[in-house]
Amino acid sequence: MPLSVGVIGGGQLARMMIPAAVNLGLDIRVLAENEGSPAALAASAVGDYRNLEEVLRFAQGVDAVTFDHEHVPQEVLRELVAQGINVQPGPDALQFAQDKLLMRQRLTELGLPVPVWAKVENVADVDAFVADNGGRAVVKTPRGGYDGKGVRVVRAGSEVADWFENGPLLVEELVDFRRELAQSIARSPSGELMTWPVVESVQRDGVCAEVIAPAPKSGGKLADVAEQIARSIAEGLGVTGVLAVELFETTDDRLLVNELAMRPHNTGHWTIDGSTTSQFEQHLRAVLDLPLGATGCRDRWSVMINILGGPEGQPLHERYRGALAEHPMAKVHNYNKESRPGRKVGHVTVGGDDLDAVAYDARAAAAHFE
Amino acid sequence: MPLSVGVIGGGQLARMMIPAAVNLGLDIRVLAENEGSPAALAASAVGDYRNLEEVLRFAQGVDAVTFDHEHVPQEVLRELVAQGINVQPGPDALQFAQDKLLMRQRLTELGLPVPVWAKVENVADVDAFVADNGGRAVVKTPRGGYDGKGVRVVRAGSEVADWFENGPLLVEELVDFRRELAQSIARSPSGELMTWPVVESVQRDGVCAEVIAPAPKSGGKLADVAEQIARSIAEGLGVTGVLAVELFETTDDRLLVNELAMRPHNTGHWTIDGSTTSQFEQHLRAVLDLPLGATGCRDRWSVMINILGGPEGQPLHERYRGALAEHPMAKVHNYNKESRPGRKVGHVTVGGDDLDAVAYDARAAAAHFE
Repeated sequence: MPLSVGVIGGGQLARMMIPAAVNLGLDIRVLAENEGSPAALAASAVGDYRNLEEVLRFAQGVDAVTFDHEHVPQEVLRELVAQGINVQPGPDALQFAQDKLLMRQRLTELGLPVPVWAKVENVADVDAFVADNGGRAVVKTPRGGYDGKGVRVVRAGSEVADWFENGPLLVEELVDFRRELAQSIARSPSGELMTWPVVESVQRDGVCAEVIAPAPKSGGKLADVAEQIARSIAEGLGVTGVLAVELFETTDDRLLVNELAMRPHNTGHWTIDGSTTSQFEQHLRAVLDLPLGATGCRDRWSVMINILGGPEGQPLHERYRGALAEHPMAKVHNYNKESRPGRKVGHVTVGGDDLDAVAYDARAAAAHFE
Repeated sequence: MPLSVGVIGGGQLARMMIPAAVNLGLDIRVLAENEGSPAALAASAVGDYRNLEEVLRFAQGVDAVTFDHEHVPQEVLRELVAQGINVQPGPDALQFAQDKLLMRQRLTELGLPVPVWAKVENVADVDAFVADNGGRAVVKTPRGGYDGKGVRVVRAGSEVADWFENGPLLVEELVDFRRELAQSIARSPSGELMTWPVVESVQRDGVCAEVIAPAPKSGGKLADVAEQIARSIAEGLGVTGVLAVELFETTDDRLLVNELAMRPHNTGHWTIDGSTTSQFEQHLRAVLDLPLGATGCRDRWSVMINILGGPEGQPLHERYRGALAEHPMAKVHNYNKESRPGRKVGHVTVGGDDLDAVAYDARAAAAHFE
């Protein structure tokens, strides 16, 4: 009997775990939300991740349960654990990825560098915070935000008045940053830790557009500090599996923690083609408490460009021909998702010695899909 | 609708096509011989590849049919084509991989370098060939041999007397070779060709044990000649998909064609971790007539070691822990096959700059499974 892993959620992250599971000889099963999900090939069940019974049935007999997303309710997670299911990462860790207020609170307790923040209960609280922080602030819903949703830059609390319907909000200073970085790390239940090089991520409209690995000019101290932050978070929050830490590099040369993801993350997709061990393989090794793999770069530079869905029309695979023909070095990944404007439907990674050439090749290959 | 490919046969070669199909966004379906095959994850049908109806039903609606092995009978292949199924490689090419006598004949017609050979009908024919070729010869059954089966070194025809029951045999000179090499190439129906660097393969008991890529001391003329031979065969035989050409490097510095395989081959497994485009990805691209990918080496050296099944006992995945813990650079592939002595159940690839260190690491990682 091979080791088995159950993945809750059938999106592209679950999909990209399939090749790693196949290579390692693991039995991968996915609880998908619907038929025809990106991870349909490994979907052993279709069901609702909020329904305890469906999740319990799915989880029977697997060596570890892990996640494609962070939306499984705490009640469900805690009942799984109570019934003896091996959930990685566990609910105690996951709560910090599910609730940004809890996350800010815990990182502050751990002494980690974060933007100035506050929990706000009403419009007046936001106005007061704005007044104290240069006339602008970022308001975030503690739960459910992703890809820029649930995040708004405001000059006045009235701009998010309706957001208070669901409870308190998180407000943060508008960080004056030079660029965004991301530091990924994997931690196993026995405590083994492995980090990848820190990367630079370029966001467009709140969505990750490009990743450069390693981040240019990240030698020495910057890389050390980013790695140390990720280690402190992984250990301090008891994370298992892959943790991605999104960071701001401020104009006054500090690193501040922006967001956390306790799963493989868009900023780590380059590792499939660019690192000895991909984040998907490492995540599976970590959640099964297998020894972790080497995380060095396979190329001097890797550049990953997201493919965002454009208007309906030509299916993705028909656009392949041109991209593949003109860019034989490009690794094109297609998530088999229905194309909708702005939706992440694939990515392209190119590696090589010359950053300008690599970035040009990756962008040009991805442009075939626009 | 993604492009779809149907693979006849559910062994490890079909299994290793799954990650490539997932990455490229292809719909991969496998016709497996039985439940629980290595490629079970993608098995859309379980059936007999010799049964035309079962194969036809499986092949309905796929954009191309290809193979995990070369055993599908010509009658079945030709009827598939007659019914409009896109079979790659087609029966006209596959016959040369199915019948070694046909292969030797055709390669000789094409003027390609092969060992001295003859078609023999009886014991006396073998004795005559042995007498003409230094007192020994290699006798091969034209069909069905693999991993050293159906191949025997003889001094007299009487040693293979019973083999004539199934018809004529192939007899070849016992080549005085320095080492064995293998040259892989992919060819698409539109005629695009891409080769990987020639590799050295080390056989033990007739089974591939190790592959070193690229072959040491294969710069310049040797690599050119190997590539030219593979191109001539791919074009001359009308091969589509991946073709692996096993070669002898003789002690008098010639290259002679030993065997052919018209599918991904054990001597190309290193490409999964060691080349920009793996043989499995390239095979899928080729049979679907998509543009081919770059085939450069990702490391100065890659060494692949086969994991052969040992005596029953500890399951493979339990042996992982030690192998992964001590060899973080090793890419361990597990085919999820029941372990039987001598059976190929997985492989390990390590890449790096120093051949001795890489080979040591790969062999030591594989040794955990012995």
